[in-house]
Amino acid sequence: MGGGGNDSYGKKAFKRSKSHFADRITADGRDGWPVAAGRYRLVVSRACPWASRTVISRRLLGLEDALPMAIADPIQDDRSWRFTLDPGGRDPVLGIRYLSEAYDKRETGYPGGVSVPAIVDVPSGQLVTNDYQQLTLDLATEWSALHREGAPDLYPQALRDEIDAVMAEVYEDVNNGVYRAGFATDQEEYEGACAGVFRRLDMLSARLEGQRYLVGDTITEADIRLFTTLVRFDAAYHGHFKCNRWKLTENPILWAYARDLYQTPGFGDTVDFDHIKRHYYQVHSGINPTRIVPLGPELDGWLAPHFRQELGGRPFGDGTPPGPVPAGEEVPAQGRP
Amino acid sequence: MGGGGNDSYGKKAFKRSKSHFADRITADGRDGWPVAAGRYRLVVSRACPWASRTVISRRLLGLEDALPMAIADPIQDDRSWRFTLDPGGRDPVLGIRYLSEAYDKRETGYPGGVSVPAIVDVPSGQLVTNDYQQLTLDLATEWSALHREGAPDLYPQALRDEIDAVMAEVYEDVNNGVYRAGFATDQEEYEGACAGVFRRLDMLSARLEGQRYLVGDTITEADIRLFTTLVRFDAAYHGHFKCNRWKLTENPILWAYARDLYQTPGFGDTVDFDHIKRHYYQVHSGINPTRIVPLGPELDGWLAPHFRQELGGRPFGDGTPPGPVPAGEEVPAQGRP
Repeated sequence: MGGGGNDSYGKKAFKRSKSHFADRITADGRDGWPVAAGRYRLVVSRACPWASRTVISRRLLGLEDALPMAIADPIQDDRSWRFTLDPGGRDPVLGIRYLSEAYDKRETGYPGGVSVPAIVDVPSGQLVTNDYQQLTLDLATEWSALHREGAPDLYPQALRDEIDAVMAEVYEDVNNGVYRAGFATDQEEYEGACAGVFRRLDMLSARLEGQRYLVGDTITEADIRLFTTLVRFDAAYHGHFKCNRWKLTENPILWAYARDLYQTPGFGDTVDFDHIKRHYYQVHSGINPTRIVPLGPELDGWLAPHFRQELGGRPFGDGTPPGPVPAGEEVPAQGRP
Repeated sequence: MGGGGNDSYGKKAFKRSKSHFADRITADGRDGWPVAAGRYRLVVSRACPWASRTVISRRLLGLEDALPMAIADPIQDDRSWRFTLDPGGRDPVLGIRYLSEAYDKRETGYPGGVSVPAIVDVPSGQLVTNDYQQLTLDLATEWSALHREGAPDLYPQALRDEIDAVMAEVYEDVNNGVYRAGFATDQEEYEGACAGVFRRLDMLSARLEGQRYLVGDTITEADIRLFTTLVRFDAAYHGHFKCNRWKLTENPILWAYARDLYQTPGFGDTVDFDHIKRHYYQVHSGINPTRIVPLGPELDGWLAPHFRQELGGRPFGDGTPPGPVPAGEEVPAQGRP
């Protein structure tokens, strides 16, 4: 996300924009965009929690070959997400320098913000969707013909009501709550948001004390969405967004839960703490005018034993863990053991 | 400290000013200021670590009656420290609204900053000293005729070389190091200061693993000076100054050492976390433009058992703990148990 109109903060309370481009890529192609191997390009930033959902789902489901990925620079400029990490500053497949070029191809003069995750149709160069709430659900359900063998069911039919309910609370209070705290412009607004973050985290901690995952006994979409906020918590939200009642490392249950997922193939191997820290601390100069990036926190705890397997659970259900990260998509170790 | 020229930060590396008014109040009165009960008024802010040294020393030594204390508002305005906590906004003894008025009486048109701790001569209304490095040493040695019965020796003659050496390192890397990190204006300057803070804290942690106090087996001036930074660490320096490799609560030795002192009469009963947090987050709008004060960290750990008495040590040497806080000087509980 982020960049323009999506992360808007001004005099009024922070409000996250709805995605403007909400076409869906489906098995039956009813919106004009049928699922097809190699046709689309997923554009992400490893800094962004909303985009990171798609990075994790793509790994767990084995969609790396079917849906190639472009990784934007964690630092946006005034034209938003850009491909400055690629040779010549252009995405090698789309040939564009800014993600906004794909937005422009879809709708000339679109006045809203440019956000990730985004899926671009490679033949036309047009943006298909930036619908961060729907995108991973479609990867899990509509793209199933292209899933790897042994891919888990991340959105099991029988549990969808419960998953949806948990995700709605996590979205409001946690995923988006940290942003409302961080971008608050007055004390009262901040305190409401920050208290809400920790109230919800306390409830989630109680829920996860006796069960390994949020819903059922396997990893689901709900876990992916909580993980992407938790993994950023101490590195960005605790200090930069002032969500500092406690660090994740000080909550034994949530810290073990987050480590468990981090150590599961498809989660930790997608996380780039350098991108995360530089993005938050350097882009939001309104709350960090010096743009200095902190040295901490120390990361060596992420690989410590978590003992969550003692709670049972079958991470991938009847499936299997994903294989290694594809060549070219590895994240540097960055001080992790 | 703080307010004007003392905490100066601009394009160059942060540099703490030397005290301009360095007269000493001594037993023999050689600078014209003899020690005398009730003649002087100590002006502090409970937010300020440099002033808090004097608040603690005064308590430990039982100088509350001999040296009455004025407590400034934790939020300075453009005229610096002010007595807005007092009825009518004036210190009831000095009759002034701003500490700067006592500076002006001493030296008209003094261009430097107004800082606490400060001692004012009540009869003339003149500032005597704002020498934060000398002031507590003089309370410990020159004011001994007015110490309470059972007052500890905070600066024992036989250990002064070692105390001075420890305090010099703690000053450079820790007391002032956190400010250099927090007020750094570029990444390199910040990283040098922040790394230095934690390098020194790691060394102090090793030193304190097997001994209860920094020098000898009793509380000395060196402990007071380390404590005033440690007690502010998680509440202000960790987030606001980006000293975030770890929280104090994550270092078992230093956290137990800090709790031990906090629970010792004369230390924790002087600490006002509300003043501390509001001062740092609201005054330094250059690094916290929203002036929002975080809800965290939680404070309930400060009264947890520390087990440091197992290391031996005699907190007050041949002396005794101070009595209760004088009426009118109690700090509200602020969520502590």
